[in-house]
Amino acid sequence: MKLRVKDMDIETGGILIALLNENDARKLDLHPEDRIGIYHGKKKAIAVLDIAESKKACPEGEVGLFEEMLDLLNAKDKDEVEVVIESKPVSLKFIKKKLDGKRLKPKEIEAIVKDIVSNELTTIELTYFISACYTHGLSLEETVALTKAMIKTGDTLKLNKYPIVDKHCLGGVAGNRTTMVVVPILAAAGLTVPKTSSRSITSPAGTADTMEVLCNVCHSIKSVEKIVKKVGGCITWGGAVNLAPADDKIIKVENPLRIDAEGNMLSSIMAKKGSMSSTHVIIDIPLGKGAKIESRKEAEKLSREFKEIGNALGMKIKVLITDGSQPIGNGIGPALEARDVLWLLKNDKRAPQDLRKKSLMLAEETLEMCGMDRKIAKEMLESGKAYKKMIEIINAQGKKITDPDKIKPAKLKYEYRAKKSGKIIHIDNGVISRAARLAGAPQDKSAGIYLYKHKGDKVKKGEIIFTLYADIKQKIEFAVDALKERNGIIIT
Amino acid sequence: MKLRVKDMDIETGGILIALLNENDARKLDLHPEDRIGIYHGKKKAIAVLDIAESKKACPEGEVGLFEEMLDLLNAKDKDEVEVVIESKPVSLKFIKKKLDGKRLKPKEIEAIVKDIVSNELTTIELTYFISACYTHGLSLEETVALTKAMIKTGDTLKLNKYPIVDKHCLGGVAGNRTTMVVVPILAAAGLTVPKTSSRSITSPAGTADTMEVLCNVCHSIKSVEKIVKKVGGCITWGGAVNLAPADDKIIKVENPLRIDAEGNMLSSIMAKKGSMSSTHVIIDIPLGKGAKIESRKEAEKLSREFKEIGNALGMKIKVLITDGSQPIGNGIGPALEARDVLWLLKNDKRAPQDLRKKSLMLAEETLEMCGMDRKIAKEMLESGKAYKKMIEIINAQGKKITDPDKIKPAKLKYEYRAKKSGKIIHIDNGVISRAARLAGAPQDKSAGIYLYKHKGDKVKKGEIIFTLYADIKQKIEFAVDALKERNGIIIT
Repeated sequence: MKLRVKDMDIETGGILIALLNENDARKLDLHPEDRIGIYHGKKKAIAVLDIAESKKACPEGEVGLFEEMLDLLNAKDKDEVEVVIESKPVSLKFIKKKLDGKRLKPKEIEAIVKDIVSNELTTIELTYFISACYTHGLSLEETVALTKAMIKTGDTLKLNKYPIVDKHCLGGVAGNRTTMVVVPILAAAGLTVPKTSSRSITSPAGTADTMEVLCNVCHSIKSVEKIVKKVGGCITWGGAVNLAPADDKIIKVENPLRIDAEGNMLSSIMAKKGSMSSTHVIIDIPLGKGAKIESRKEAEKLSREFKEIGNALGMKIKVLITDGSQPIGNGIGPALEARDVLWLLKNDKRAPQDLRKKSLMLAEETLEMCGMDRKIAKEMLESGKAYKKMIEIINAQGKKITDPDKIKPAKLKYEYRAKKSGKIIHIDNGVISRAARLAGAPQDKSAGIYLYKHKGDKVKKGEIIFTLYADIKQKIEFAVDALKERNGIIIT
Repeated sequence: MKLRVKDMDIETGGILIALLNENDARKLDLHPEDRIGIYHGKKKAIAVLDIAESKKACPEGEVGLFEEMLDLLNAKDKDEVEVVIESKPVSLKFIKKKLDGKRLKPKEIEAIVKDIVSNELTTIELTYFISACYTHGLSLEETVALTKAMIKTGDTLKLNKYPIVDKHCLGGVAGNRTTMVVVPILAAAGLTVPKTSSRSITSPAGTADTMEVLCNVCHSIKSVEKIVKKVGGCITWGGAVNLAPADDKIIKVENPLRIDAEGNMLSSIMAKKGSMSSTHVIIDIPLGKGAKIESRKEAEKLSREFKEIGNALGMKIKVLITDGSQPIGNGIGPALEARDVLWLLKNDKRAPQDLRKKSLMLAEETLEMCGMDRKIAKEMLESGKAYKKMIEIINAQGKKITDPDKIKPAKLKYEYRAKKSGKIIHIDNGVISRAARLAGAPQDKSAGIYLYKHKGDKVKKGEIIFTLYADIKQKIEFAVDALKERNGIIIT
């Protein structure tokens, strides 16, 4: 059918969509989400059909096209194009198969992932896939296939090194900025540590947000390669490299219902490690009330699965189930956490000892996994070699600040005091994180919370337990209101 | 946050969407599909958030709004509005619950249906619901609750009559236009038969398409009421009345993967009967190779479920499992089927006897269910009273044509002849339907197929089995190609 182009003057940013009037669609026997081929001279593109019920959106005899499509076809408003029916992507059959509870073959999963990455699937189709993975679960073989397909369809880092070390934490614990201590220790010990981290989604800071206080974290895969070749390690933002891009699209569909299918989570994490060509990966599963994982059984199940997938991908995996029942470190929020990390690396007495202990343990376990002496971790930290390495990394990434005493918290503060004397038996990750976020973290880098006390500490009535920092009064008020709503500090 | 309106100059036609620049969204800690409230003076509306990654789509400091939203807020381009965070609809919790394999309570299902109808749910959220219904199935209690909620959220017909009779056919059989014979027979017998029918989706004609050859079928609920009060029955298009509107939205999400969850199908059918206040419903399940239902076990299971739901809704249900192994009637396509129906009602010898037999049987069973004498069906037909009633219905709906001999097939034809002598042992519904569609049906009313032979008939080599009719040569060719691809007529 010959139609005239209607320039919709919008980018869709995702899948290619074409709009037909409902009467034209009926003539071609087409339904929403069918695929149509559009020819303009020798150019051709395939789009997903959307049907306009009103003349205003798209009148009869016209086909509404968006920016990306006009570029592809080299077409403009009023040009004549030929519209033909195309078959749907074959991956839809495999999605239906999974929805029907059957196992998918690696080739079938690869076809789905390829179509996700190249924007061939509509949101409805992708949602059915995620829903099917969630309700029926993924077998180990399926998870491995998904992981491999995600690696294959994204950028990969190729370093001519062995071992290549990486770490991952399942999260849910406020503070807990171990990565920024462990990476310089391991790199100082001579290991290769190309670490990419995420920004916060629901926490007051991600490692990328915190590292960004000290230096630039937006580096392309080429830039990461250069930095790692020069200084042995990096801590950059994963979003700036195109690792496993299927994952971002999957997460977008998971978010509305906070779906977190186990198979998809495992693939998401492992695909990023695989994309960096990691050979030895240490995984930290914080366990405890308020952490992401609250049952030991679940933690142990995940632990086994990480190892099995690692095995299938030819990676060595060590999983540590750690105490996730309270925040780790004193600072919560990008600037306050970055200051903790620098104090720690400088062996300053203001450094939080819980963060020091956990980071050293993680570094020791990694060294051991790589066949090296555990003692090297402490040596690197105490000799200042880890600090020196951190400065090298910061400089290589584009330095902003390296002196912890020049990192200042936000100007307004609120002191949270003990309501009675006694022993602190619980500091709730959820409540602390929420208050720090309401104070402005991670968007306001210097906003957040500084903890003076931890679980097990004795306090007197009126003693300061933590200070809340924010840029504007209203944010302090929001955070204080949230603290009143739910008591996050339990004293007995 | 105060933002300026950007008029997107598009209607979305469905849920209310607002577009924010990704930087503004980050400041408010918002993610795609979150809900935001928008205030303009005293007006307020809630929208689903979409995030623009480019300045072009939506620059910082602005909020992109579509036509429906601008109308609701009485706002125009550049107006200042206040944007606040809103919580998500509570029905999302119930969708998640179903996705986790748990049973939903009637109130929870009602909340979901209400939100579907009022466009509160996004496509992703609705897809999760349908996916969950499909993978976990719906219990009888859930199906009944879904049916009731669908009736409640749409228009209903209230007639002060008893009994009110309806019929439904599960479909998949070419031709098979029994409704247009059964309704006038029953109405002539004094029963109230407010029948709404669908247009074709994947077949060469729906009852609404065929009835439309004879008269207008687009009548509102008020118009249907008037017609039925006047002549006792009607055959109108279901799409013109707002019966169970949730169903249309559910079908849109089912279509891309051709999902047909049993619970949703049962609800969809029964909600429409309930909306018409039907008291006695006859359900025809054609069974056979090429029909929608191919296994007797499945047909019997559906039969039980229809009765159980009917029971819960206070309706009497009779289910007939009929022969669906070949087309019924001679004409396939709106005009050719309408001609068959009129010949039959006029007791013309050209009328297809298989259609006559089946229609009479359905009418007899319905009469019996209503406590009336089965013989009345034949009396109404043979006395011409059913034909007279049909003319009354046609006149009441807005007559186009009533003389079958004035209904002409399309001008071009192709004669399909027997390749050998023998007995016809199979005429494939799928192949016949596809050829009739490719010839132009139902869009071209006079296109289609006219069968001279049925299963069991003896043919000689070269004898005409059917004639294909189309308006243009290309459509004849398309249909003939399809007939060559797959042999639909088997002779032994």
